[in-house]
Amino acid sequence: MSSQFGHLFRITSWGESHGGAIGVVVDGCPPGLALSEADLQPDLDRRRPGQNQLVTQRNESDTVQILSGVFEGLTTGTPISLLVWNKDAKSSAYDEMSELFRPSHADYTYQAKYGHRNWQGGGRASARETVGRVAAGAIAKKLLRLIAGTEVVGWVSRIGAVSGRIDPESVSLEAIEASIVRCPDPTLSEQMIAEIQKARKDRDTVGGIVECIARPVPVGWGEPVFDKLEADLGKAVLSIPACKGFEVGSGFAGTQLRGSEHNDPFYHDGRGVRTRTNHSGGIQGGITNGEPVICRAAFKPVATIFKEQETVNRRGESVRFTAKGRHDPCVVARAVPIVEAMVALVLVDHALRQKAQRIL
Amino acid sequence: MSSQFGHLFRITSWGESHGGAIGVVVDGCPPGLALSEADLQPDLDRRRPGQNQLVTQRNESDTVQILSGVFEGLTTGTPISLLVWNKDAKSSAYDEMSELFRPSHADYTYQAKYGHRNWQGGGRASARETVGRVAAGAIAKKLLRLIAGTEVVGWVSRIGAVSGRIDPESVSLEAIEASIVRCPDPTLSEQMIAEIQKARKDRDTVGGIVECIARPVPVGWGEPVFDKLEADLGKAVLSIPACKGFEVGSGFAGTQLRGSEHNDPFYHDGRGVRTRTNHSGGIQGGITNGEPVICRAAFKPVATIFKEQETVNRRGESVRFTAKGRHDPCVVARAVPIVEAMVALVLVDHALRQKAQRIL
Amino acid sequence: MSSQFGHLFRITSWGESHGGAIGVVVDGCPPGLALSEADLQPDLDRRRPGQNQLVTQRNESDTVQILSGVFEGLTTGTPISLLVWNKDAKSSAYDEMSELFRPSHADYTYQAKYGHRNWQGGGRASARETVGRVAAGAIAKKLLRLIAGTEVVGWVSRIGAVSGRIDPESVSLEAIEASIVRCPDPTLSEQMIAEIQKARKDRDTVGGIVECIARPVPVGWGEPVFDKLEADLGKAVLSIPACKGFEVGSGFAGTQLRGSEHNDPFYHDGRGVRTRTNHSGGIQGGITNGEPVICRAAFKPVATIFKEQETVNRRGESVRFTAKGRHDPCVVARAVPIVEAMVALVLVDHALRQKAQRIL
Amino acid sequence: MSSQFGHLFRITSWGESHGGAIGVVVDGCPPGLALSEADLQPDLDRRRPGQNQLVTQRNESDTVQILSGVFEGLTTGTPISLLVWNKDAKSSAYDEMSELFRPSHADYTYQAKYGHRNWQGGGRASARETVGRVAAGAIAKKLLRLIAGTEVVGWVSRIGAVSGRIDPESVSLEAIEASIVRCPDPTLSEQMIAEIQKARKDRDTVGGIVECIARPVPVGWGEPVFDKLEADLGKAVLSIPACKGFEVGSGFAGTQLRGSEHNDPFYHDGRGVRTRTNHSGGIQGGITNGEPVICRAAFKPVATIFKEQETVNRRGESVRFTAKGRHDPCVVARAVPIVEAMVALVLVDHALRQKAQRIL
Repeated sequence: MSSQFGHLFRITSWGESHGGAIGVVVDGCPPGLALSEADLQPDLDRRRPGQNQLVTQRNESDTVQILSGVFEGLTTGTPISLLVWNKDAKSSAYDEMSELFRPSHADYTYQAKYGHRNWQGGGRASARETVGRVAAGAIAKKLLRLIAGTEVVGWVSRIGAVSGRIDPESVSLEAIEASIVRCPDPTLSEQMIAEIQKARKDRDTVGGIVECIARPVPVGWGEPVFDKLEADLGKAVLSIPACKGFEVGSGFAGTQLRGSEHNDPFYHDGRGVRTRTNHSGGIQGGITNGEPVICRAAFKPVATIFKEQETVNRRGESVRFTAKGRHDPCVVARAVPIVEAMVALVLVDHALRQKAQRIL
Repeated sequence: MSSQFGHLFRITSWGESHGGAIGVVVDGCPPGLALSEADLQPDLDRRRPGQNQLVTQRNESDTVQILSGVFEGLTTGTPISLLVWNKDAKSSAYDEMSELFRPSHADYTYQAKYGHRNWQGGGRASARETVGRVAAGAIAKKLLRLIAGTEVVGWVSRIGAVSGRIDPESVSLEAIEASIVRCPDPTLSEQMIAEIQKARKDRDTVGGIVECIARPVPVGWGEPVFDKLEADLGKAVLSIPACKGFEVGSGFAGTQLRGSEHNDPFYHDGRGVRTRTNHSGGIQGGITNGEPVICRAAFKPVATIFKEQETVNRRGESVRFTAKGRHDPCVVARAVPIVEAMVALVLVDHALRQKAQRIL
Repeated sequence: MSSQFGHLFRITSWGESHGGAIGVVVDGCPPGLALSEADLQPDLDRRRPGQNQLVTQRNESDTVQILSGVFEGLTTGTPISLLVWNKDAKSSAYDEMSELFRPSHADYTYQAKYGHRNWQGGGRASARETVGRVAAGAIAKKLLRLIAGTEVVGWVSRIGAVSGRIDPESVSLEAIEASIVRCPDPTLSEQMIAEIQKARKDRDTVGGIVECIARPVPVGWGEPVFDKLEADLGKAVLSIPACKGFEVGSGFAGTQLRGSEHNDPFYHDGRGVRTRTNHSGGIQGGITNGEPVICRAAFKPVATIFKEQETVNRRGESVRFTAKGRHDPCVVARAVPIVEAMVALVLVDHALRQKAQRIL
Repeated sequence: MSSQFGHLFRITSWGESHGGAIGVVVDGCPPGLALSEADLQPDLDRRRPGQNQLVTQRNESDTVQILSGVFEGLTTGTPISLLVWNKDAKSSAYDEMSELFRPSHADYTYQAKYGHRNWQGGGRASARETVGRVAAGAIAKKLLRLIAGTEVVGWVSRIGAVSGRIDPESVSLEAIEASIVRCPDPTLSEQMIAEIQKARKDRDTVGGIVECIARPVPVGWGEPVFDKLEADLGKAVLSIPACKGFEVGSGFAGTQLRGSEHNDPFYHDGRGVRTRTNHSGGIQGGITNGEPVICRAAFKPVATIFKEQETVNRRGESVRFTAKGRHDPCVVARAVPIVEAMVALVLVDHALRQKAQRIL
């Protein structure tokens, strides 16, 4: 297990889907930041299931409590412990899961690695684990706004077969949140909703792509050669459940460009050095160049489908399996605040690291 | 700067393109491994420029020396220091680089972040930095073969517009190394060579994709929730110069599949639990499931093109710039041993971490 | 702030004296360990104030809850979150502390470093912070017994002017716990109690020394050159509030011996290599040699005395200060389980690290 | 093996007594520091053997080379690789060491832990390993002078039975270096020399105590609760070969004081808050309080004595052993620059960490 993330702004995540509670400890948050539960709850609400008719109807309220590290409304520089109680879940809905390995879930690998697992609701491998990330990410977002005026915004750019061109630099949080699939383009949004409803009808699921921008970002964040900003962003985002790919700037599409097309020419805009294009995604040599940081995350379709599947049980015997319970045909929109949180956590960590090097 | 990578098998990289030498320290290599320079040199030779007519003609011999950590032919469990002397380089070829920022290189970001940089040959941001990674990776590869019989093999699956289907599981090192672009399919290989020669003629460059497989891989490597295997692989690979994207298993393409298509059904093959397909890329819930680990890395086209470009100098003034010196239209084939090295470093680190947890 | 300790068995501590709760997250505990609150409570009870007539009468029950990481009575290899609610404390008792800096407390340094501090009851600098250490240490102790049959036992060997020779190898937990000052020698124990009562009468405080043994300890724990066992033990113990010194084996007294007196001759006892003496304290070259590990920790007298003292307030003005509230003339006996916990945490971490290196 | 030390200013040490070379990589040194070999050589010369008639006559020149990280005389923020070649040593002098375990050396524990060791000259466990620490420490010292005007000075306060009161705050580097035993008090120095000569005559060895001061030190360095400054200093110093004890401020002697004697009253000296006494050793609650940081390290007598000793060989058989070669009756004076280096490394790391937290 490795439940720590970050160097100077470091989070420790704990908790299972069906344990007593779930939480996170944030260590290294600078002192003097105004902070209350009200800063954290909105992103938790954006993350939780049951927000609309497209997704699972489970109603977890996910109310966060700050247990330490804040005094008289300001952070003290000491660890901030955040806790969300789990609701009493009917674990009987999952009884079958103790005995068989759901395809493309983590049941088998957890069983094989640990020998003993909390199989209720996926245990530690459940997406419920991301509650702590989102709560900690909300602190990181607030810090970024104060440190550098930086805003981290994510949206859905693909659901299954549906995708389209969305200009990252002009996208607004309002347009995103106006869509129940978090796609800022209303036409695309409608198509995505239809794509999800089709999957629901088929007792199936769909995946998609989350795109994320941080803007503005100062020059100088990123620590080559191993903690390059894109490397740390990649690790952060790829650690989110169901994420199978990450790219920054031109990404995989950029491999089809010529150098003369891909290079971002420098110019001076009167205030500072800028680039005319941003194929670099705001990062050159692992360090931010002052342009917006843009990245994308690929999420596979949810593994819990409501069709019969082949699998094996704990004794290795062939069994057939059909999921029971609530049907969540697509979780990509819910992944948006999680991607934002991970991006924000990386950026604030690098802001602190860069600050330290400015000592001479 | 962050020049360490890995937890239990940890490397420290140092050196610039035009400093006196370049090297790496490997800490945490288990004792008792037979090791000599002959184990390391082949991968260094695969990495270095000037191997064929397609790439730069610079002849760096890159002869590695083991300075510590090996006694009477066996590792002692103490740090292994590896050093490669830099050849005397005519730094005059780079004089202009002290004054201007080459587009899509790290000149500008290093200058802005550090205030003072070794501008000769790209300094620390040069791909020459990867010498140490490859040398350390050769140790990791040897360990993996001993620990689990695991082989890590990479190849080129795309150059610019040229790509095609290559079956990862049947690919062989021999077929790959028989191609000067490291593409195991002879027809594709010819097309890729033509693509690179076209770029050369145009004084331009092309990018591409490296695919990599590790096989066989035991069940249980990977440390959720933040050091999931795909997250650590992603960080490792995205820290390679010019890498803009990473995916594991189905990756970005998987976002277009339904759950019923993407899920990998479990079955028992008589010896153990297997999956019928491998969209998961050998990793479920961040932990290897016993199938081959398969990943892909996107490399942007080389930034050094021989056409005139717009840029600015250190004073922010507009200048025109045309690269001088050797023309390297494509470095994707040389990236193959670097990707292999990073993948091997991650796997061996996780093998050690998994071992530790087996203490009860 | 740095609230993590350990590499493979890593704890994250959080909480203040007067925040809502205090806790610890244990990451890296191997799966399959039988664990319940009943394993943790006894050491917490040994640590807490109000156990006898010598110490403060505050009655904190310190009931620990396991919130994650245990399923059906066994650890799952996932993070174990432990929480203890703080009782409602009358913070008015500390109002003065918001305005002035108590001599030899951390009020001034926290104020200067963080700019904003939870001044109630010492906040994060309170010894209450050690609740989490002791709870996590109880898990480490249980693991050590299973892994290597190792027992970690501490006792008080000095209170103020009172000290005497106690043979570490024959000391028993029963004899220690029979003494309210945790001194296994009944005569010395009486003298120590008298020393504390004298201090109480004088409205003053006394310090002392805790000695600790781990036995038996296998050969091979410790990771030179920086994570030598004595170095990690030293860091662990010196991080306990009020600890000003640490020594292993012969320690400071050993500086007065000749090499011929200090060297521990090796012999073979029929089962293995042993040493005739143990001036090394069970550690040679940073690695355990199979003899018991023996160390000592110096605790200064409690800073909260009930005599008037000179100090300054937040504006730097001279003020006089006399502590109010409960009088705790000596906390050395309560430090015993904290020292044991820190020693156990270091040992179990090194046991895991050593295990990982045994992979070939 | 663990060969890294430090968080933001991190060193990686490598090399054996009789391997090809020995060295260190310094990662995290801020850019823009003027640095050349001339900054490092003086401390290496203070560390090396053969400086005077009291110590071993081996003449290792220990000439350091900077291989990376410095360009045109200034650090670039990239890793600084420092290398010292080993002289050809007649390993035959050590042949016996391959077969038997010298008492109170690391021969036995290295053999048991690693199974295979470089037995020549003690290999990695040799004090020669400290060459890298001292070279890196010289960089840390230079940085501290620039960052905070801080000077780190060590001296010998005890050799065997000889010790005396030396006022830390008035001690000068000149007085220390005027003494071949690095004791600033001329009378004590003479007695120490006599003590060493007596041990030499007896074919024996003596230990001693090194005391070290850092002055001035700003308020705010140290990261509770685990990376308290005294904890990190303790770890740093206890990782030096032969060190068996560490204390800060009043240390073990402070356990015999009453709280009313030990507390350091605060006052305002017109410029800032000060303490009237410094029993705290400049650290309160793990954080510097602006007073000089004072610590002490206990070094056991050298294990290599020239009298016959009992020991066992690799087969566990009883053998008699008498050391051959050069006689080094006391190395405490040579430990002074090593202690200084480790203290400086800790302080500069904490200066950087503190800087990072000042981001709001």
